[in-house]
Amino acid sequence: MHEFAIHATSGAARAGALTLPHGTVDTPAFMPVGTQGTVRALSPEDLRRAGATLVLANTYHLHVRPGEQVVAKLGALHRFMGWDRPLLTDSGGFQVFSLEGFRRVDDDGVEFQSHVDGGRRTLTPERATEIQWILGADIAMAFDHVVPGGADEPTARDAMERTLRWLERCAKRHAELKASHDATMPRSTVEAGHSLQRGVMASWNQTLWPILQGGTHLELRAEGLRRILDLRDWTGLAIGGLSVGEPKAVMYAMLEALEPRLPPALPRYLMGVGFPEDLVAAVERGVDLFDCVAPTRNGRNGSAFTPDGPVNIRNAEHREDPRPLDASCDCETCTTFSRGYLRHLFVAEELLGLRLLSLHNVRYLIRLAEEMRVAIRRSAFGQWADAWRRRYLRSGSA
Amino acid sequence: MHEFAIHATSGAARAGALTLPHGTVDTPAFMPVGTQGTVRALSPEDLRRAGATLVLANTYHLHVRPGEQVVAKLGALHRFMGWDRPLLTDSGGFQVFSLEGFRRVDDDGVEFQSHVDGGRRTLTPERATEIQWILGADIAMAFDHVVPGGADEPTARDAMERTLRWLERCAKRHAELKASHDATMPRSTVEAGHSLQRGVMASWNQTLWPILQGGTHLELRAEGLRRILDLRDWTGLAIGGLSVGEPKAVMYAMLEALEPRLPPALPRYLMGVGFPEDLVAAVERGVDLFDCVAPTRNGRNGSAFTPDGPVNIRNAEHREDPRPLDASCDCETCTTFSRGYLRHLFVAEELLGLRLLSLHNVRYLIRLAEEMRVAIRRSAFGQWADAWRRRYLRSGSA
Repeated sequence: MHEFAIHATSGAARAGALTLPHGTVDTPAFMPVGTQGTVRALSPEDLRRAGATLVLANTYHLHVRPGEQVVAKLGALHRFMGWDRPLLTDSGGFQVFSLEGFRRVDDDGVEFQSHVDGGRRTLTPERATEIQWILGADIAMAFDHVVPGGADEPTARDAMERTLRWLERCAKRHAELKASHDATMPRSTVEAGHSLQRGVMASWNQTLWPILQGGTHLELRAEGLRRILDLRDWTGLAIGGLSVGEPKAVMYAMLEALEPRLPPALPRYLMGVGFPEDLVAAVERGVDLFDCVAPTRNGRNGSAFTPDGPVNIRNAEHREDPRPLDASCDCETCTTFSRGYLRHLFVAEELLGLRLLSLHNVRYLIRLAEEMRVAIRRSAFGQWADAWRRRYLRSGSA
Repeated sequence: MHEFAIHATSGAARAGALTLPHGTVDTPAFMPVGTQGTVRALSPEDLRRAGATLVLANTYHLHVRPGEQVVAKLGALHRFMGWDRPLLTDSGGFQVFSLEGFRRVDDDGVEFQSHVDGGRRTLTPERATEIQWILGADIAMAFDHVVPGGADEPTARDAMERTLRWLERCAKRHAELKASHDATMPRSTVEAGHSLQRGVMASWNQTLWPILQGGTHLELRAEGLRRILDLRDWTGLAIGGLSVGEPKAVMYAMLEALEPRLPPALPRYLMGVGFPEDLVAAVERGVDLFDCVAPTRNGRNGSAFTPDGPVNIRNAEHREDPRPLDASCDCETCTTFSRGYLRHLFVAEELLGLRLLSLHNVRYLIRLAEEMRVAIRRSAFGQWADAWRRRYLRSGSA
C-alpha cells in the first residue's frame, strides 16, 4: 500500500511510482496545496483535469478551523474536500513556527496563538499525529521544529535534536493508533469500501514520514539523516527547513551534498518547493516530490508560469493580445481564453481571473513534472534541463 | 434565424423555443448575467454544464472597460468570453440611469460619469446600437430611459415618450449597420465560419428588441405597447422598468394586465427578474425570458436557493451537516460537497465557496425553468405552481 518503485534514472534524477491507498503518484510529482481543505480558487474537478494526483492539506489550519472533529463527522478529509485521490497532511510544525505573535517551545511541544481567534493552543508530537490520524490522509508528516534559513549551528542543532526526539514520539503514537484501530475495526468493514468508511480506510493505511532538519549545516543534516534511518524503516523521507530564506545556491548545494547519502529506495519530498526553476534543479539532484503555494498565490496576483518565464497578465502589453497565455499548454485557460481577456478579468477584478491563472499555474507545474519524467526515461535529463533553463531564464520577468 | 415557436400553453404560461444564430433557447428560460463579459465566479464550461443556453452581458460595462474596440480585436464578444451559445446585450440604458453621480438626460441621449475613471461619456441611441453591433451578441436591446418604480405619471410618460423616440433611432441605426454590412461582406466569407469571423457572423444576424417602459401606469404601458408594435415587426419584446423598487404585487398585477395585450407570437423578456418566486409568478403571467444577478450575487453572500426556500450556508446549524445543499439538485456543488464543507469555505473565506454557491443558484433557476416547461407541456402549470409555492414559501428564510 505504500510502495515506491523507481522505473528509470538519468544522473541523480529518478522517475518512479508511489503507490498509496487512494491511488498511484508518478514521480517526480508536484502536489498543489489545499491549505484549508481547498486548493485556493480550484475545485477537485479542476485538479483532476489538471492531472493532480496528490494534494497537500495543512493540519494546523484544519485543526483551528473547522477542527478535525468536524472534518471527521463530515467523513474525514477525502470526503470533506471531495478529493478521491491521495492526500498528504503536513504536521503543523512549519505553520506554528511561521505564525506571527506568541509562541513558546519546550520539549513537550509548542504553545501558540491561533490566527483565527487568538486563543492559546498547544501542539505536541502526539497531538499532531492524532489530528492527522483523524483527518485520514494517505501520508502524515512528523511534527518538526523549523528554524529560519540563516540559523547558526547551535540553533539548528537544538531544533534538529528536538525534531528527532519528537519523531520518536510521533512514530510511537502513530503505531499505537494503528494497533488500536486494527484491533477494533474488522477488515471486512473497511474493505467493503462504504463511502462513509473511506476516510477510515485511509487512516487504517496511513503512513508517517519523517522530516530531516538541520538548517544549512551539512554535518547536521548528515547526522540527522543517519539517526532517522537508524530509528526504524520508513516509507518516505521529507527534507524540511530549506527554501526558508537561504540563498537558492545554498539550497541546491545542500541537496547535491545530501543526495548520495539518501537511501535510493525511499521517495524524497522537498517541502515547500517551489518555483519551476527549483523543481528542475531539485529533480536534477534526486528529489521526487514537491509542494508549494506559488502556483495558486502567484496566479491570484496575475503572474503566470510559461516556458518563456513568468508573465504578468496585468501588463498593458496584453490588452489586445489574442494569443493564449501559453501556446504549449492544454489547460482550460490556455485552450479557451486570450491574454487580452485574462488581462480584462484582472483589471476588472473578476473572480474568474484568479481561478484561471491558478489553474494554469498548477497545470504548468504538473506538466513540468510530466516532461521531466519523460526526459528521465529517455536518459536525457541533463540535456533537457539545460534546454529548459535556456528558454525559461532567458526572457523571464515577473 | 430569429424564430420563436410556442409548443405548449397552460393558462397564460407558454413553453416554446427561440432559435438564434448561436443556438436554440427553450423557454421559459433564465439567463445568467455576465456583467463584465464573465458570469461572476463561473467559467463558460460551468455555465454549459449548468444548462445555460443564453447569457446576458452589459453594454455599459464592456464599453467603459475594456471598450468595445478591444472586444472586437479579440474576436467579438462570443470569442472574447469563450461562450459559443446565444448572447444578449442590454443597451446600457438601465445602467446609466442607475449610476451614482453626474447624469444629464436630453433628447439626444445621456451624458454620464464612468464608474471606472470618472470621465464623462455620452450614450445615444445610435452609439448604444453601434456598440452592441460591434460586440456582436445574437440579441441587442434598444436604448431606453428607465425611471424608478414609484415615478408619477408625467415622469413615466416623459421617459416612455423618450424611449419611443429613441427606439426609432435605434432601429434606424441597426438597419443601416445591417445594410452596410450586407453590402460589404460576402456571405460566403461569413458562412465559411472562420473562427475570427464568428463575432461578425453574429452581428450580421443580430436582431434588435424594443423595451416597453411606462412605470406602474397601465394606460401608459398599453399605449407604449401599441406604438412599439405599430413601428415595425419585431422578433421579441422586453418589459423594462419593473422590479425597480415597486411592490411585487404591483409588478404581478401589471404583468397580468399586460398579458392579453401582448402579441402571442413574440418572446417576452422581463428584464432584471429575478428571484424564484418571481419567475414562477411571471411565467404564470405569460413571460418567456428572464435575467437577474440574484443567483450569483446571493451565492457570493452565502445564500442558496433550495426547493424549501433560501438557505444561508454561513449559519452555525450547517457546521456538521453532511447533507448536500439541495438533495434534488444535480449540480457539481450538490453532488460533491456537504453543507458542512460549504459552510467551512465561507467561514474560512475561501474563493471556492463563492463559486460553488453561484453555480448551484444558477443551476437552480435553470432547473426551475426546466420544471416549468415540463408542467406547461403537461397542461398543469397552475397546480405545479401552487405546489411549488407551498413548499418554497413555507419555510424560506434567507
